[in-house]
Amino acid sequence: MGPDPFTHPWLGGLFADEEVAAPLSPQAQLAQMQRFEAAYSRALGATGFVAPDLAERAAAAIEAATFDMAALRAGTARDGVVVPYLVKQLKAQADAELHPAIHRGLTSQDLTDTALVLALKELLPLFDARLAALEAALSALIAEHGDTPLTGRTRMQAALPVTVADRVETWRAPLADHRTRLAEMTPRLMRLQFGGAVGTRHVLGDKGDAVAASLAAALGLGNPPKAWHAMRDGLGELAAWLSLVTGTLGKMGQDMALMAQQGIDELKLSGGGGSSAMPHKQNPVRAELLVTLARYNATLLPGMHHALVHEQERSGVGWTLEWMVLPQMLLTAGRALAVANDTVGAIERIGTP
Amino acid sequence: MGPDPFTHPWLGGLFADEEVAAPLSPQAQLAQMQRFEAAYSRALGATGFVAPDLAERAAAAIEAATFDMAALRAGTARDGVVVPYLVKQLKAQADAELHPAIHRGLTSQDLTDTALVLALKELLPLFDARLAALEAALSALIAEHGDTPLTGRTRMQAALPVTVADRVETWRAPLADHRTRLAEMTPRLMRLQFGGAVGTRHVLGDKGDAVAASLAAALGLGNPPKAWHAMRDGLGELAAWLSLVTGTLGKMGQDMALMAQQGIDELKLSGGGGSSAMPHKQNPVRAELLVTLARYNATLLPGMHHALVHEQERSGVGWTLEWMVLPQMLLTAGRALAVANDTVGAIERIGTP
Amino acid sequence: MGPDPFTHPWLGGLFADEEVAAPLSPQAQLAQMQRFEAAYSRALGATGFVAPDLAERAAAAIEAATFDMAALRAGTARDGVVVPYLVKQLKAQADAELHPAIHRGLTSQDLTDTALVLALKELLPLFDARLAALEAALSALIAEHGDTPLTGRTRMQAALPVTVADRVETWRAPLADHRTRLAEMTPRLMRLQFGGAVGTRHVLGDKGDAVAASLAAALGLGNPPKAWHAMRDGLGELAAWLSLVTGTLGKMGQDMALMAQQGIDELKLSGGGGSSAMPHKQNPVRAELLVTLARYNATLLPGMHHALVHEQERSGVGWTLEWMVLPQMLLTAGRALAVANDTVGAIERIGTP
Amino acid sequence: MGPDPFTHPWLGGLFADEEVAAPLSPQAQLAQMQRFEAAYSRALGATGFVAPDLAERAAAAIEAATFDMAALRAGTARDGVVVPYLVKQLKAQADAELHPAIHRGLTSQDLTDTALVLALKELLPLFDARLAALEAALSALIAEHGDTPLTGRTRMQAALPVTVADRVETWRAPLADHRTRLAEMTPRLMRLQFGGAVGTRHVLGDKGDAVAASLAAALGLGNPPKAWHAMRDGLGELAAWLSLVTGTLGKMGQDMALMAQQGIDELKLSGGGGSSAMPHKQNPVRAELLVTLARYNATLLPGMHHALVHEQERSGVGWTLEWMVLPQMLLTAGRALAVANDTVGAIERIGTP
Repeated sequence: MGPDPFTHPWLGGLFADEEVAAPLSPQAQLAQMQRFEAAYSRALGATGFVAPDLAERAAAAIEAATFDMAALRAGTARDGVVVPYLVKQLKAQADAELHPAIHRGLTSQDLTDTALVLALKELLPLFDARLAALEAALSALIAEHGDTPLTGRTRMQAALPVTVADRVETWRAPLADHRTRLAEMTPRLMRLQFGGAVGTRHVLGDKGDAVAASLAAALGLGNPPKAWHAMRDGLGELAAWLSLVTGTLGKMGQDMALMAQQGIDELKLSGGGGSSAMPHKQNPVRAELLVTLARYNATLLPGMHHALVHEQERSGVGWTLEWMVLPQMLLTAGRALAVANDTVGAIERIGTP
Repeated sequence: MGPDPFTHPWLGGLFADEEVAAPLSPQAQLAQMQRFEAAYSRALGATGFVAPDLAERAAAAIEAATFDMAALRAGTARDGVVVPYLVKQLKAQADAELHPAIHRGLTSQDLTDTALVLALKELLPLFDARLAALEAALSALIAEHGDTPLTGRTRMQAALPVTVADRVETWRAPLADHRTRLAEMTPRLMRLQFGGAVGTRHVLGDKGDAVAASLAAALGLGNPPKAWHAMRDGLGELAAWLSLVTGTLGKMGQDMALMAQQGIDELKLSGGGGSSAMPHKQNPVRAELLVTLARYNATLLPGMHHALVHEQERSGVGWTLEWMVLPQMLLTAGRALAVANDTVGAIERIGTP
Repeated sequence: MGPDPFTHPWLGGLFADEEVAAPLSPQAQLAQMQRFEAAYSRALGATGFVAPDLAERAAAAIEAATFDMAALRAGTARDGVVVPYLVKQLKAQADAELHPAIHRGLTSQDLTDTALVLALKELLPLFDARLAALEAALSALIAEHGDTPLTGRTRMQAALPVTVADRVETWRAPLADHRTRLAEMTPRLMRLQFGGAVGTRHVLGDKGDAVAASLAAALGLGNPPKAWHAMRDGLGELAAWLSLVTGTLGKMGQDMALMAQQGIDELKLSGGGGSSAMPHKQNPVRAELLVTLARYNATLLPGMHHALVHEQERSGVGWTLEWMVLPQMLLTAGRALAVANDTVGAIERIGTP
Repeated sequence: MGPDPFTHPWLGGLFADEEVAAPLSPQAQLAQMQRFEAAYSRALGATGFVAPDLAERAAAAIEAATFDMAALRAGTARDGVVVPYLVKQLKAQADAELHPAIHRGLTSQDLTDTALVLALKELLPLFDARLAALEAALSALIAEHGDTPLTGRTRMQAALPVTVADRVETWRAPLADHRTRLAEMTPRLMRLQFGGAVGTRHVLGDKGDAVAASLAAALGLGNPPKAWHAMRDGLGELAAWLSLVTGTLGKMGQDMALMAQQGIDELKLSGGGGSSAMPHKQNPVRAELLVTLARYNATLLPGMHHALVHEQERSGVGWTLEWMVLPQMLLTAGRALAVANDTVGAIERIGTP
């Protein structure tokens, strides 16, 4: 067990979000890779590249396969990616006559990138739902307390009176834009990855496009004209969106932490944190956490943009960097949305006392 | 004269882009602030907040005003923003009876943010045109040399044969998506900033919305329901888009630099750079520059996302940070697009020799 | 199980480093916090703040304590830090008369920061040893192959002939400087954290310094004149050093990946990675991984420097951000050193063939 | 004129620091490159590589040379660096018989990197002096107001009473460590850059080391055993130090901005900024600026660490990236130190009122 905050035995109380983590877990990603391989075998059958019943038997063998995790790890250590050993294990669990219907014409990125896309297919609607819930909660807050006065502050100095609605609207209004951005971005992300060794589907000859169409339909994904192995702008856009969302929530958290200061006293949250030295304190832990999560995602974001410099047909450097960064950004954005919803729900009092 | 690369006497040969710099120059931004103030005075007149002819005379005085730059600098040093002294100078050049029609109900962010938006109104179409030109140039490259063979490379190792079209398509295809993103994002950026001291247009009473509508129409901008003083996600989205664009161009530059290596010899560029020690060399300077510009924008990007944590009604911290980062990102993206177009135009030979 | 690369079932083959992870594990950190609490109780006894035998009994109770992890997690979710519940559990496992000798005058940062320092006390010598091993391996490489010719390359273009020694020296020479920096930095890091609620050791009255001295001696740490709760520059310096080290190793990895290109053929590594599509390939997976790890640490580094803006006596925001960043940087630097040593050991041929 | 904050006509009131900018200006850097070339010619004479009087005449011609800036710019656009055209102009202003004593055996990095080091030779003592002045000012503040009570705050919540000395000490104590770090780092930075085309001084045969020693002595720099063309860790260390310093000052600025809030009222600064909408306000502009400068340097820092991945004998990518980042970090740190000193000097009242 390592220091990873998202799976940490006690820090997980701050950072863990099971619903978001589920489709990103190794087990779920492995299942998606199996699903991809099985769908691919069937697509080979559906397009006449192999006999349909052979394809179906191959798909069934793939779906039934189990994996030796130690071997997958050793293989990844050697190859830089799990797929070669994963395919080796798939074939070892299928009759030799099925081998021509397994993984033929695929490459590692096809599997791992599509498995990521299939996780996003679950996560993006979840993010949208959490954004919608937060919008609704903030609308309700405005409805209930919007007219309560509040000291408007600019450059941290008291400026002029405003209302609770005025400030809360700066938390709420960007959420609608984030949802619009998400809707616009989604078709650019829900794209099958399928290109084979160098991205050209060359092994399949003139059947490449037909296989792609069949495979995309089976997985419920868009079918771009070309594999996006070396075009990572969709993922770069996603990362930026995740950081925009956490940035908006971080602004809300920062405002809340400032409002909760003694001497300001414009916000009271239930369930605030205690201190080992001062048990009476009510720390705005969740509000601070929103700022932390915003700064963490802002920190990680350039990792995904440096990875855009993805040389030639596949960059081991850039691709591997994505694995260290993007799942963490997804977990962070998901967690921030959950914390934001909790925190708004914990408001006991808001506005000038 | 400082070490700023974009205005540097000799480094400017690498970094300067006059067309992009023009609307971001202090002079142009000052002119946009004057334009905003004049349009505002007229909007006060058009909505009956002040008498129309008074408004018109105020606008004319604003338009005719000149500025004492040393005083603007001293004022900025004191106030953190140029606007208070700028307004003081405007008023000093207008009859006292016009003062109620000048700046009344405005705040510093209204001017400086709208002046930025007006610069973007010039720049975004320019970026789109450069993206379109690059798309066309790469399409022509594919048309001319697309069938030439090339060694496909994954993880920097020779993999399987591809064609020039296969690789160039990974440079070209993202450009269309960048243009789509730009079109989607533009209405979120072309928004009037107008809120007054704490973002609520309170000084104008029930005329606030009418003034906003009149002002937005005069400036050709969208009229959001609320000032976005403390909601900086539009700028954060823009910054991410700029970095996505330079990332795509950086991938092209990295590929070109690798293709131009002796021993690989898959690309010859005209006009390559020489060396003071080895005059015979043909360095792929522009290709490398594309990678540098990509990494620079990726580096700056989180600055704009940290600035999203924009506390209360106005954050001096976050707003000032934007001034240090966003213009540079715009210059970088513009320059990278120009360099990319030049570099594609300088291709003398591409593909396996 | 989550997508954390360092503990991932198969990606761990690339990223995991058990020796570095051990002192950072939750279990080890918990043990260090127990050790700290026990030493503190004894220091209270040694300085006459409580009776020595009471102190000893308290320390023994602390050392024997076990923890309910679910409660620690729930407590962290509430308080933002594990310590209040941890102390609650410690007290629940000690006679009430011992409570005055447990945690009295301490605060959460004292425990968690000192536990981190105690992990660093194990890790820094390990890093030094790995740096020394790499220096030795590169010296041996120079001794064996240093005179072999190599094409010097500038701006990725063939320049003039050099030797293997010339290039390898650019990998080796910085290691000595990194070791010097580590030696200089170490006393700034090996500092007890002890300040109590607001960093002033106020609970202990005039015995604060004596307790600090006793505690520091017991833990083998330096005893700074004041708690560094709100002064995080030592950790920021460490983070920068980790990224400097991975940057140097990333340069070596980048060079190796370029040298291993077909057409260049200046390096052959054993045990290179295969491809699921092209089993014959020998991908320089470890060389690429060094570049990835360099870019990952460079990405994370600013997280630690933003955390320097640590407001007032303790910033929940900045402190929590450190937990998400610094352990990962330590794991990355440790792993990069191991991979670098492996990769140099895997060189089968180097230089112009 | 561009949007560069450091040379901006009015933003310069916030960001400009003439004393720090001077040695980094293009004119000063050009002068340092001339100085380097002249010293090099003399070193060639002193070591018998050319006749001493020829060397002296060459040096004199170099020192008397003037430059056509448009040509330098055009040359930089072509070559990626100014040096080839600069040398061309030097030679054009010297008799042909002097040419063997001009630039022979040098390369572009030798000039530009050494010119940077010579700027640092002026700047590092200046930074140290400003750190010392700030230490003294904070010591005086503690001496005068240290016993004044202040509410200790953790997680932004009132915790327990402390004193002004307790908080100010967290601003002051790191400064001594920064000065120690600077002293330790300085010899690693004050290193001559001299390697010739591929870093090996090959043109000079067995006289290379003698020329290096003579040149280093003339310039007052250390003489490392090998050119550091491709070993950029010294600059990466410097960048990290600059960001550590601004981080410490940002913490002070953040504290001050929080203390100056109405409702908290623990700090009053003279000369605070006004608002165009609320002329009565006293904004803590300088305190906020310290936070902005901290976040800006933290943002830029990874640019210098990505540049450590400096491939082969010289990376155009990494080197050019340094030019966009390091001067800005130096200006930022210098400016932050000046602002910090000003701000401490502007304290009118501190502590609980």
